[in-house]
Amino acid sequence: MKYIKIFAPATVANVSCGFDSLGFAVDAIGDEMTFTKTAEKGVQITNITGADLTYNVDENAASAVVKKMLHTANADFGIELTIHKGFSPGSGLGSSAASAAGAAFGTNQLLGDMYSNLELTKFAMFGEKVACGSAIADNVAAAIFGGFILVRSYEPLEIIKLPVPNELRVVAIHPQITIKTKDARDVLPTKIPLKDAVTQWANVGGLISGLYTDNYNLISNSLVDIVAEPARKSLIPFFDNIKNSALKAGALGAGISGSGPTVFALCKGDTVAKAVYKSIEESYKNTGIDFEMFVSKVSPEGIKIIK
Amino acid sequence: MKYIKIFAPATVANVSCGFDSLGFAVDAIGDEMTFTKTAEKGVQITNITGADLTYNVDENAASAVVKKMLHTANADFGIELTIHKGFSPGSGLGSSAASAAGAAFGTNQLLGDMYSNLELTKFAMFGEKVACGSAIADNVAAAIFGGFILVRSYEPLEIIKLPVPNELRVVAIHPQITIKTKDARDVLPTKIPLKDAVTQWANVGGLISGLYTDNYNLISNSLVDIVAEPARKSLIPFFDNIKNSALKAGALGAGISGSGPTVFALCKGDTVAKAVYKSIEESYKNTGIDFEMFVSKVSPEGIKIIK
Repeated sequence: MKYIKIFAPATVANVSCGFDSLGFAVDAIGDEMTFTKTAEKGVQITNITGADLTYNVDENAASAVVKKMLHTANADFGIELTIHKGFSPGSGLGSSAASAAGAAFGTNQLLGDMYSNLELTKFAMFGEKVACGSAIADNVAAAIFGGFILVRSYEPLEIIKLPVPNELRVVAIHPQITIKTKDARDVLPTKIPLKDAVTQWANVGGLISGLYTDNYNLISNSLVDIVAEPARKSLIPFFDNIKNSALKAGALGAGISGSGPTVFALCKGDTVAKAVYKSIEESYKNTGIDFEMFVSKVSPEGIKIIK
Repeated sequence: MKYIKIFAPATVANVSCGFDSLGFAVDAIGDEMTFTKTAEKGVQITNITGADLTYNVDENAASAVVKKMLHTANADFGIELTIHKGFSPGSGLGSSAASAAGAAFGTNQLLGDMYSNLELTKFAMFGEKVACGSAIADNVAAAIFGGFILVRSYEPLEIIKLPVPNELRVVAIHPQITIKTKDARDVLPTKIPLKDAVTQWANVGGLISGLYTDNYNLISNSLVDIVAEPARKSLIPFFDNIKNSALKAGALGAGISGSGPTVFALCKGDTVAKAVYKSIEESYKNTGIDFEMFVSKVSPEGIKIIK
């Protein structure tokens, strides 16, 4: 294989009760990336569209991953990379994760599929570290494994792929504001009451059980975050309006995607998803804040080969 | 139906990472209870063997449940109750829960099966309140639903029955010491670091995922409690010896049953379970502390009708 073009999806991390543990991939939006083998070793970014990102191969999340993988695999070729960002950095939808995970996946294809999904996740985490300063796994693992994933452990890294009920849909709104990652971290409590922790892990258990059994009621009851959301929602203007509009229109639940500002809602079926989309849109259109929205399936496969 | 005899199992609550949320039923030990319809209304305990418990119908966990159910159902008959305790109160194996859950189940049979398992759990929780002062659900729900259960929520009460991998076995040791419930509560932290909470709920997610997929490695990796066990293990003499002996002999994991002093180990298959039994026995026999042990299946059905 000398060339590959892939789609690297946006991802939702910190799924309600599953703060720092649960993520999923969407399929409506994401990046397109191409990888071309070159005789000359090393990595080069030949084109970036859709966002203003660095061409410095050690500072760009995608090229940093490609470079590390080529070096680790002791490859006798290089790669030319193009990146078309399909969604904005800073949205809370795993923009750097899509680049990093896509880079790991694409490079692995040109290397003849040497690495497992877990190994690719580790390479992609290096890209997250380059982009954000910390090697977080939930977004990149969701992109690479697809569907719902659980980061069971970091040391050693263990990723569990969870089933995705067939009718699960996601509606998301991205208010065009900026939340600094530092601010999103700083508002979190360093300690939480044990009884709140119990409530939260009982909900994690309920959500995962619901995913295994296609039990939408249980998924809905379990999509509750009493830890991160209460602390972070004040960073997102009109968060309660969005959430209430989603629930009123029949969403199973709603929460902050990543560290925001995107807010996601999970829904059963296309009809409800459309109603939730309209309800959220209606609630937000007079706020004076620009926003983008999408409806999507939860992508069972994550990264896809386009050609 | 005029008469029923049942077996009400011992149960393990606070299953490792699932503090206050996860429980399971065993089938090797439990209580036997009989329920006989009487023309005279009300409840009477005619015999208690195996433990020194009160015959006062308002203070005994079993009879208090029977009385409440007969009253709620506006029954035109009464019940005579016998209780044979098959294991000791204060063991951490849900002794009052077995009595309360058994009472709810048996009474429901004589009432013509009026109530759902969830309703029976609520009645049995009343028995827990009579016996222990708080209406905890995990032991009684495990006895009534059988298998592994998750208490997803108390308000409203929601119990999720989880699957039980076929080869799952439990080995337990009950050191003959007394732990006061108050002491077991007092050593728990009221707040825990957010990062520890994340670790704990990722393990809850892993354990439940492992139960759904018969993934014994995942179950093993997830049977970790970094919240309650570190605080409580000092109340159980030689806890670390027990746990290390169990793990060395191949147990998937080990932890404190309820608030102790019983320590349980989960194992894959009978051969490993026997080895774990011997290893724990060996480690404890020179401590100078009397102990009882058992090996059991995780009971998929919980309470059983004997005749």
